[in-house]
Amino acid sequence: KVDLGIGDLEKGDFEHYMLKEIFEQPDTIRDTYRGRIRKDQDDIVLGGLIDVFPKIVEANRIIILGCGTSWHAALVAEYLIEEYARVPVEVEYASEFRYRKPIINPGDVVIAISQSGETADTLAALKMAKEQGALILGICNVVGSSIARLTDAGVYTHAGAEIGVASTKAFTAQVTVLTLFAFKLAKERGKIDADTLKMFIGEMLAIPGKVESILLKHPHIKAVAEKYKDAVNALYLGRGYLFPVALEGALKLKEISYMHAEGYAAGEMKHGPIALVDDNLPVVVVSAKDDYYEKVVSNIQEVKARKGNIIAVVAEGDNGLRSMADDLFEVPESHPAVASLLTVVPLQLFAYYIALMRGCDVDQPRNLAKSVTVE
Amino acid sequence: KVDLGIGDLEKGDFEHYMLKEIFEQPDTIRDTYRGRIRKDQDDIVLGGLIDVFPKIVEANRIIILGCGTSWHAALVAEYLIEEYARVPVEVEYASEFRYRKPIINPGDVVIAISQSGETADTLAALKMAKEQGALILGICNVVGSSIARLTDAGVYTHAGAEIGVASTKAFTAQVTVLTLFAFKLAKERGKIDADTLKMFIGEMLAIPGKVESILLKHPHIKAVAEKYKDAVNALYLGRGYLFPVALEGALKLKEISYMHAEGYAAGEMKHGPIALVDDNLPVVVVSAKDDYYEKVVSNIQEVKARKGNIIAVVAEGDNGLRSMADDLFEVPESHPAVASLLTVVPLQLFAYYIALMRGCDVDQPRNLAKSVTVE
Repeated sequence: KVDLGIGDLEKGDFEHYMLKEIFEQPDTIRDTYRGRIRKDQDDIVLGGLIDVFPKIVEANRIIILGCGTSWHAALVAEYLIEEYARVPVEVEYASEFRYRKPIINPGDVVIAISQSGETADTLAALKMAKEQGALILGICNVVGSSIARLTDAGVYTHAGAEIGVASTKAFTAQVTVLTLFAFKLAKERGKIDADTLKMFIGEMLAIPGKVESILLKHPHIKAVAEKYKDAVNALYLGRGYLFPVALEGALKLKEISYMHAEGYAAGEMKHGPIALVDDNLPVVVVSAKDDYYEKVVSNIQEVKARKGNIIAVVAEGDNGLRSMADDLFEVPESHPAVASLLTVVPLQLFAYYIALMRGCDVDQPRNLAKSVTVE
Repeated sequence: KVDLGIGDLEKGDFEHYMLKEIFEQPDTIRDTYRGRIRKDQDDIVLGGLIDVFPKIVEANRIIILGCGTSWHAALVAEYLIEEYARVPVEVEYASEFRYRKPIINPGDVVIAISQSGETADTLAALKMAKEQGALILGICNVVGSSIARLTDAGVYTHAGAEIGVASTKAFTAQVTVLTLFAFKLAKERGKIDADTLKMFIGEMLAIPGKVESILLKHPHIKAVAEKYKDAVNALYLGRGYLFPVALEGALKLKEISYMHAEGYAAGEMKHGPIALVDDNLPVVVVSAKDDYYEKVVSNIQEVKARKGNIIAVVAEGDNGLRSMADDLFEVPESHPAVASLLTVVPLQLFAYYIALMRGCDVDQPRNLAKSVTVE
């Protein structure tokens, strides 16, 4: 990438690349939607997909492939595309998809998500889909990467170089692209009207400012991290759009602090993981003022009844959860469909501070590589 | 269920219902396929589905709903149906499916899996699918249960009453039904020939005897459990048909021993969970002599390089893994498509013994109910 300024490769005032990258997110999200949200026309334009968009509009099924954090972004996209564009979506681990004999029919669209564009399993899965005649698309951060070159078309996430091994700004950039894609597809398929698209565009344009306001609360997040830094395990729960955020929040903690955190769909809690709950277990509940709200309240009550500690990510002004949770990470209100872009941010910072307090090498966690270029 | 003998409700010589139910599996698997595998005709007949089978053969998509262990059985079915019957399958948590606006098209078939037939989220999801005009099928253990009564058609798992809260024989019975379903569908759709069906029937008929031979090794499994009983965390890894077994093995341990075990698709290991690996972490690797074998070997080497302890579930005579693993659970060889029915058994026993050694109430684990009849 030739247009990379030297500033992009320096930590500057930040102690770690990861912290710098977390704090860059208002800018990287803005960079990612810049030129793609046409405020003057109340429209979304994804330049890289213009030629193939008529085919995408006709797709019978969309298959999204990824690994790790990219797989979480794919789950957000599944919910968005199914709810608004009404196309069935299948999300697969690239490492599973490529080794079984997956069904790829004519008219299927396969989207690969990879920050580096070099993820070995994703690349191999994509080659297989291409051989079987699918339209293959890429959502990558690194310009000119292998996946970007292999695909028929794609959209770059303009997040800039990501140095920290635990992905942060690349995730929010991926979700930004996928959200624009879902709303554009919904509009082109006639499933949402111009006013709804306009409303969603407004929601997206408000995200960077809201992320900034979350980042300003870092001293509070750090103080909460101090309370839980010695925990051995943690559970992360979410429903709907916030289920992938629960997975992603848990993955961050696991990757850099080596605390065994596990994400779960909150509705699954009673089918097993609630057995783990005792007074030593922090349970992070990711919530928003959405259709799931009452169910989340009931999940929290169940955890509290078993003396678990609740850290709740909530919308500002949610006084209901305030009285039930042990600790709160407040995020500005938003439409539930874009709430993943806000709720993930305090969880990135929470993982960062815990890892720091545990003396871990935040930017270079043990055993992990930035790009998994082996199979 | 009026035909329940008193013997079914007694533990007899077993210390716990769970242990009794694990040991019943050769019988319950046989009971579940009895009358459905027509050895004389080399055919499979699912009586409860005869009237609707023509519709199933024409399905564009199959959606399978479940929670907990039933969701793991659904994942096995997804792989089987896609590989052999070539129908796209979507597996969903019932608790997620019901609250979003899922896409259900005419011609879609929705299958609900529930031991009790009373799982609240699954029941609600099924009602929604029925309202939207899908053909809805049930795979339940309890005759006359709510899901059995709501569905258009279904297949009972004849596993007998399951008393232990952690499901064991119900899981293998569900997988048995789903395997028969997948092979029958593959045959009716012309995707496998009569010889292949015959081969798979032979594989299924051999399962009970093979499960018996695994159960006979319980003293060895108990000895291995003794070694790892004080671990704080565990990872379970598998690929393909054995990915759901990894999830199920981890869930058993979590449910009854309260050890934080997490299952992962082995290909995802390098995208995060490998950061957890150190010399205190047991890693259970579920393998079979299948297409994934070399990849599993490489996963094991990565864990060993980081001083993790490997407990490998392997096919008998697999001397390659013998030298790499710290401990082995050997299971008889089988076709990979049915290997889940064998490989899960040592993991059920492993969880049982660990829970026992940790002084846990195996049949009534804390916080859990046998049937989750609340939402």
